[in-house]
Amino acid sequence: MPGQLIARGVARHLAALGFACVEEFVPARGLRLDLLALGPKGELWVVECKSCRADFTSDRKWHHYLEWGDRFFWAVDSTFPTELLPAETGLIVADGYWAEILRMPAESRLAGARRTAVTRRFAAHAARRLQALRDPGAALGDS
Amino acid sequence: MPGQLIARGVARHLAALGFACVEEFVPARGLRLDLLALGPKGELWVVECKSCRADFTSDRKWHHYLEWGDRFFWAVDSTFPTELLPAETGLIVADGYWAEILRMPAESRLAGARRTAVTRRFAAHAARRLQALRDPGAALGDS
Repeated sequence: MPGQLIARGVARHLAALGFACVEEFVPARGLRLDLLALGPKGELWVVECKSCRADFTSDRKWHHYLEWGDRFFWAVDSTFPTELLPAETGLIVADGYWAEILRMPAESRLAGARRTAVTRRFAAHAARRLQALRDPGAALGDS
Repeated sequence: MPGQLIARGVARHLAALGFACVEEFVPARGLRLDLLALGPKGELWVVECKSCRADFTSDRKWHHYLEWGDRFFWAVDSTFPTELLPAETGLIVADGYWAEILRMPAESRLAGARRTAVTRRFAAHAARRLQALRDPGAALGDS
């Protein structure tokens, strides 16, 4: 299943838990998170969506994603060989319609200054994408 | 000119200044800001759009909007009788395509805790509206 469909199912489930999600969030140059979720208490969860074994084994950057959220999850479909995934990371199984958290990872809380910066960037990212959809005539820089 | 068109022009201009905007933001029960803009340094600007004299004179809540941003502006079209507006407030003249800041109000900076809370709520608002547009099949609570 393509990663974008997995992301859709994950975003639906996290919304039901009170989180708001953005996709393809760029926390720093050269890094792109599949999904960043902001929780009701300001928690930030990073979710990487993997469509298949090769999609996971070819990802050489994932260790860098850890530092942008309080918790880190993989999201995969039900056919994915989950034994590949590091035991200390979170695990979500999803399809295009829904998702379930199978393993909750330990929390590694962001420092306050980084939380503030990431939350602000999340806000700008979501608002700019929203404006681009609501007002296609506006020429907006990407975030 | 309807307030929504004015808001569109204001959002375009503020985007060019590096701000990201959301419309119809609810900072607290019973209050609705026409436009809340988040700046590159985390500034929060409140903009109320008024379509005509009656739209302004019937607004009995606007003093409550001041406490949700660092600066407060009215946005009106070029036919609006701007002498009605308090001199200490900001003034933007807009149409549906663009806007111009005619008077920059003094800054009254939010306390840190409120800035954090409003920024987080801005982020969740924008992300939920964006998700609702990208994934109409998801049933999402409004923020």
